[in-house]
Amino acid sequence: MGSQFWLWLDTIVMVIGGGAILMIGKRRTAKEEGHTIFHGIVPIIAACSYFAMAVGQGSLYLPLGTAAGTGRLFYFARYIDWSFTTPLLLLTLAMTAQHSVVRRPSAVAGLMLADLMMILTALFFGLSTVDWIKWTWFSISCVAFLAVYYVIWVTLKQESVLEREDVQQAFRRNAMILSVVWLIYPIILFFSTDGLGVFDSATSVACIAILDLIAKVVYGLMTVTTHSKIVDRDLAEHSSPGLRRAA
Amino acid sequence: MGSQFWLWLDTIVMVIGGGAILMIGKRRTAKEEGHTIFHGIVPIIAACSYFAMAVGQGSLYLPLGTAAGTGRLFYFARYIDWSFTTPLLLLTLAMTAQHSVVRRPSAVAGLMLADLMMILTALFFGLSTVDWIKWTWFSISCVAFLAVYYVIWVTLKQESVLEREDVQQAFRRNAMILSVVWLIYPIILFFSTDGLGVFDSATSVACIAILDLIAKVVYGLMTVTTHSKIVDRDLAEHSSPGLRRAA
Amino acid sequence: MGSQFWLWLDTIVMVIGGGAILMIGKRRTAKEEGHTIFHGIVPIIAACSYFAMAVGQGSLYLPLGTAAGTGRLFYFARYIDWSFTTPLLLLTLAMTAQHSVVRRPSAVAGLMLADLMMILTALFFGLSTVDWIKWTWFSISCVAFLAVYYVIWVTLKQESVLEREDVQQAFRRNAMILSVVWLIYPIILFFSTDGLGVFDSATSVACIAILDLIAKVVYGLMTVTTHSKIVDRDLAEHSSPGLRRAA
Repeated sequence: MGSQFWLWLDTIVMVIGGGAILMIGKRRTAKEEGHTIFHGIVPIIAACSYFAMAVGQGSLYLPLGTAAGTGRLFYFARYIDWSFTTPLLLLTLAMTAQHSVVRRPSAVAGLMLADLMMILTALFFGLSTVDWIKWTWFSISCVAFLAVYYVIWVTLKQESVLEREDVQQAFRRNAMILSVVWLIYPIILFFSTDGLGVFDSATSVACIAILDLIAKVVYGLMTVTTHSKIVDRDLAEHSSPGLRRAA
Repeated sequence: MGSQFWLWLDTIVMVIGGGAILMIGKRRTAKEEGHTIFHGIVPIIAACSYFAMAVGQGSLYLPLGTAAGTGRLFYFARYIDWSFTTPLLLLTLAMTAQHSVVRRPSAVAGLMLADLMMILTALFFGLSTVDWIKWTWFSISCVAFLAVYYVIWVTLKQESVLEREDVQQAFRRNAMILSVVWLIYPIILFFSTDGLGVFDSATSVACIAILDLIAKVVYGLMTVTTHSKIVDRDLAEHSSPGLRRAA
Repeated sequence: MGSQFWLWLDTIVMVIGGGAILMIGKRRTAKEEGHTIFHGIVPIIAACSYFAMAVGQGSLYLPLGTAAGTGRLFYFARYIDWSFTTPLLLLTLAMTAQHSVVRRPSAVAGLMLADLMMILTALFFGLSTVDWIKWTWFSISCVAFLAVYYVIWVTLKQESVLEREDVQQAFRRNAMILSVVWLIYPIILFFSTDGLGVFDSATSVACIAILDLIAKVVYGLMTVTTHSKIVDRDLAEHSSPGLRRAA
């Protein structure tokens, strides 16, 4: 199946997934509302990006490709998507780690800035046509990714330990899934037409399309459901930090 | 009167309007300072955008127009303006609805994200030259607008009911004016040269120029004045949430 | 020494400087963590910008220069850098002025918006090729700079007076250094190839490269060190507002 199939598939599934999260997700506390809204809006932003790529507005032709020496279609729209969606996904993870109260706002801001740097330098990687410059951007993006890992697994983990056992579990599971799924992106980019050119264009698009569905829709549905159980217990124990109403 | 007249008129009136709001507006509480600063900066951002359009830097010529089949001048600068100014206008509305304390920060963030999506997809509508793609972007922008309406008239309205009667009234009036004025924008875009081409370029520019003055300067002056009366009562009753000093 | 020397020098020194701040800087309170992270990330963002300019991706050739009448190389990447880094530098200054608690969040937001307007209108100054338009943008940028000065020397100064004497001193010194160093930028731009063309391209690049090292690395190291002493006293007096742990 060609690139077009995957681009349209993701457009449709992202709309349905985002709508589903917004409908299923509850809004009983301020934090639960945050989880629902942010995880719901992420696939809808992605749907716009996939629509743009499907109709040909989200890509441009770069004359000199490193792989074949002739040129390649570069899908830039996904980087606009990721500039908004990846900080939101890290924000909900940070909210989970600091469930009772946000104790380290600057660390969360630093996490989102490192993430934005990871995405923008990955964009420059994709836009570059000279090999050594391209791979330098790729390396910088990987270092920024390590900084993201550091904040998740050191800073946020430290904070999550101060929370209830079920919150700790939710954080560990979400952090693990996000860390593994996000790690596959640079590997695919490395072998894609933007990188070494081992994968052809259709394979690259398909791999990222599948990953995006997991990272945004599946992860979102899972996170919202898990968080809902945490809030159930908050309400039962009357311990919710941001409770808005009893219903 | 041609496009140039309106572009220069708005440049001048926006500067005067922004300056007037910054001078008239008081700063007795943290929220009153927020109202003054945000409503004052909005017309100044717009003035920069109108200046850029007046001198020819804020527009580009799109070769294939849908209306006439020849081409059209697309004013992109207003979308940069709107990306900053419309979230600020929604922020002050959300601050009014939650006068005593911001109870639902994620809903406000979601409101601003939906608004940004409305503006960016409207930009893609204006940039598109293929009819079905253009109108799909227009439809997506309208759906995002409905989400903005939803947060204003359901979420924020719920919160405003928890406030004092005069705050409730201010919220209802501001929300109503903003909702009606903002509704005229997509209608004009629909008939403008960017859309069906029923209006010519000068008429489109004139309509939006007048609307922008109402939405930014008139609405801003009105909101700041109304909020000032609310703070007068806060101070008289010593009930101000973010009071900085007694004067 | 040519432009390339300075671009590569800043790339390297910014990486080292950013890394040094992140390593030296302590994270004992939420605000100290903020100082360390924000001052550490600023040179790293700048390093990316300098790398892009050094390899030729961060500049473009504008055909009509005002100075020589032939054309000039415009380095746009620094404006992307400044859009992120200057608001961060103002944020830590505002955090110092309001050490015990952020009393005026809207003034800080207004400060960062005025700063962003200063940077973006300076970008339009650099991109413009018609003289009167170019100098109008320059003037607008200077007015926005005056607004930044106003918030620093009126609003933030008022707030800093409510803090301890050592915090007041730190604020006054940081505000003074930042105000003087930042004032040199528009003076250089005025005489640079983007402006009157009195300086040649290599001199303009060299001047800004040296300024950037002072404004980001030297100022950052100094600020983090000063703030650390404030936190030492906070911890000794058990008066820290955002204390995370005793160590």
